[in-house]
Amino acid sequence: MLDCTYRIEIPHRPGQLARVAGAIASENGLIGDFVTITIGRERTVREITVEVRDAAHAEAVAAALRALEGIKVLFYEDRALIRHQGGKLRIEAVSPVTTIQQMRDVYTPGVARVCLAIARAPQLAVRYTMIHRSVAICTNGTRVLGLGNIGPVASMPVMEGKAVFYRQFAGISAMPILIDTSDVDEFVDTVVRIAPTFGGIHLEDISAPECFEIERRLIEALPQPVMHDDVHGTAVVSVGAAIVACRNAGVELHEATVGQLGLGAAGLGIASLMVQGGAKRVVAFDPSEEAHARAQAAGIEMASMETVMAQADVVVATTGKPGLLTAEMIRPGQVILALSNPEPEIDPDAAMAAGAAFAADGRAVNNVLGYPGIFRGALQTGASRITLEMKLAAALAIADHAAEGELVPNPLDQAAHDSVAAAVADAARRSGVARPDVAVEDL
Amino acid sequence: MLDCTYRIEIPHRPGQLARVAGAIASENGLIGDFVTITIGRERTVREITVEVRDAAHAEAVAAALRALEGIKVLFYEDRALIRHQGGKLRIEAVSPVTTIQQMRDVYTPGVARVCLAIARAPQLAVRYTMIHRSVAICTNGTRVLGLGNIGPVASMPVMEGKAVFYRQFAGISAMPILIDTSDVDEFVDTVVRIAPTFGGIHLEDISAPECFEIERRLIEALPQPVMHDDVHGTAVVSVGAAIVACRNAGVELHEATVGQLGLGAAGLGIASLMVQGGAKRVVAFDPSEEAHARAQAAGIEMASMETVMAQADVVVATTGKPGLLTAEMIRPGQVILALSNPEPEIDPDAAMAAGAAFAADGRAVNNVLGYPGIFRGALQTGASRITLEMKLAAALAIADHAAEGELVPNPLDQAAHDSVAAAVADAARRSGVARPDVAVEDL
Repeated sequence: MLDCTYRIEIPHRPGQLARVAGAIASENGLIGDFVTITIGRERTVREITVEVRDAAHAEAVAAALRALEGIKVLFYEDRALIRHQGGKLRIEAVSPVTTIQQMRDVYTPGVARVCLAIARAPQLAVRYTMIHRSVAICTNGTRVLGLGNIGPVASMPVMEGKAVFYRQFAGISAMPILIDTSDVDEFVDTVVRIAPTFGGIHLEDISAPECFEIERRLIEALPQPVMHDDVHGTAVVSVGAAIVACRNAGVELHEATVGQLGLGAAGLGIASLMVQGGAKRVVAFDPSEEAHARAQAAGIEMASMETVMAQADVVVATTGKPGLLTAEMIRPGQVILALSNPEPEIDPDAAMAAGAAFAADGRAVNNVLGYPGIFRGALQTGASRITLEMKLAAALAIADHAAEGELVPNPLDQAAHDSVAAAVADAARRSGVARPDVAVEDL
Repeated sequence: MLDCTYRIEIPHRPGQLARVAGAIASENGLIGDFVTITIGRERTVREITVEVRDAAHAEAVAAALRALEGIKVLFYEDRALIRHQGGKLRIEAVSPVTTIQQMRDVYTPGVARVCLAIARAPQLAVRYTMIHRSVAICTNGTRVLGLGNIGPVASMPVMEGKAVFYRQFAGISAMPILIDTSDVDEFVDTVVRIAPTFGGIHLEDISAPECFEIERRLIEALPQPVMHDDVHGTAVVSVGAAIVACRNAGVELHEATVGQLGLGAAGLGIASLMVQGGAKRVVAFDPSEEAHARAQAAGIEMASMETVMAQADVVVATTGKPGLLTAEMIRPGQVILALSNPEPEIDPDAAMAAGAAFAADGRAVNNVLGYPGIFRGALQTGASRITLEMKLAAALAIADHAAEGELVPNPLDQAAHDSVAAAVADAARRSGVARPDVAVEDL
């Protein structure tokens, strides 16, 4: 399914749009926005967004439009591609330089006094530079969305998208850093060397199991917070959703057995946070041997899929296997979160029909709710690490912000992000990782 | 000399500002801007910028103000420090996300289609990402301004300042990248690995001789343009200034002997560009042995300082040694550019008094005139390298833009930057380094 925007030129006479709409309808295209671009005396230019199944369907709609007499299709393109034209980020000056005096303040000779001040008292970098107001989004593009290893450059639109939300929801300058290596040592060395540029390090879309070692080594090596969002950001939002789902189903998490299907980056993060967050018992299934060792270290029991389904009160699935769960496997009263994208392990309606107390899929769990507030809270307190306490505080803040009937808050709700940041900042102080000397309170 | 801003609270009655101005005058402070911050019924808050000699002088002015009855100094601070509060750069979204549909365009699911498109046809990264609209400003802080090796973090204000001008004068997103190593191999490896993120690599404030090898190896290793600004940016602007100085003095550069004093990063860049730009002869003095080898490779003759001064029609000095040149050394009719900052090798007035046809110091040569237009021209043509032809074109464009009586154009003159960019783009096409597949014409 994709949204396609058609730019067409049509005669400026009554009845023309009806013909256009009719042609689109004849090809089963669903019309969305309809925007006037220019109006001439004889002809006008409009843009119509149409939901189509795929590229072939998009072309069939275009052909139907071209077949109309007097109507010209100037171009048509995927709406997402149009939106990406020119990239999604810009690096801007906080204020423009309009006089020579200002130039002398921001550059030589004035800048030398600022450099000297920082050289003498390094913590002044917090006040006089962007460093502690910024995060690097580091990736090698080895596991991007559901697309697999598409490499660093093709992953850039995801990184820019994440950075857009950092600015909008957290007031943080986030810079994508594409790292052209799949070697763990090289990746770690590169991030360590450029780390002084940034207040925080956000790891993104790195394949498992390399991502676990990379994150562990960077946390050890660096003074600033490091977080692999696919593990912990996703876990925070998923646990927030699970808390809401349990509330809806009348299940208490600390009395519940949580079953985790799939222990990739996201699954391991979720199961670990469930263990640490006080679920009575966490039992997981994953066929990979490596996953077993990681699970044991995190306090997760391993079992067969059948055992997990038989014993769990809450089932979280992140297997990447659409349709893995059938109606027969669902135990009445279970909470089912089938999170694989774009197709879940079981359709939520089917799970409900099979007796689940509550069911949802991955569309309901948007990880945009996690990382901006988590890093904002961390930068505002100068946190040296993202602790368990901070992640749980974020998950609870997300759960507490979900309105009646929502599994998680609307990701555009600024108050939700603010409340995650505040909860994380509090937890950072409680965890003893806050460093007032590098805290940016006016972020 | 520094500009200090005093924020003071004074009674809202006639005659108060006269008392304030009198107190400042009594300490020989030179008053600049005078700005009202708030006006209350009884008291008002103002900010006064005063030029003072040093920190002790600034405190003496503050003390004189504090001694006035009814007047309170709320704080005072170096104007440059105030201007740097919170850093000088922000990473912003090109457009904010206000609806769920827009979120689905810039992030999942829409972004997956953009990633896939780039994975299939990598040159689409030019259209759909910020990559080819951006430059990394890479430094290890080993030679910052005249301050020496102050390390990467303390150098950040310089890098942010350079980035401010990239945005303002060239429409380029420039990101400082602080690289925490003084090892050549580590520096090169790090830049190579993160290079896919950026359309160009700007090297800055790296000590010689390491900077020469770093630049050479990065140019070899990377498909995009790489330039060490302290070498080439400074050289371009200095050669532009020399062309204007020669014009003013009635000397033709291609019939002139150019004498270069000092072959550090800047000096070697200038002398090399003079050789390649067609000066009749370039003769240089530098006591270091290493400099000799580099000079020979660049076609520069070496000689004693006395020989250089005796034979050169145009003398360019970048030695870092204030007062190195005395009036007796100046040959009547010579053009003297004594470029060391903050103190020149000879005061321009003294050089003129000694018979120079034209003399100027480093304050007249602002390298902000070079790099923004050079990289803009390079990105607009997808240039794979910054060629000699491009640098000479930039120098000529700068010279041609200098108004009557100026050595170089006003660095705030946008037309000068545009004309550098256009000249560089033309030269890139002529040099055969333009790559239309990665050119960003709408930069």
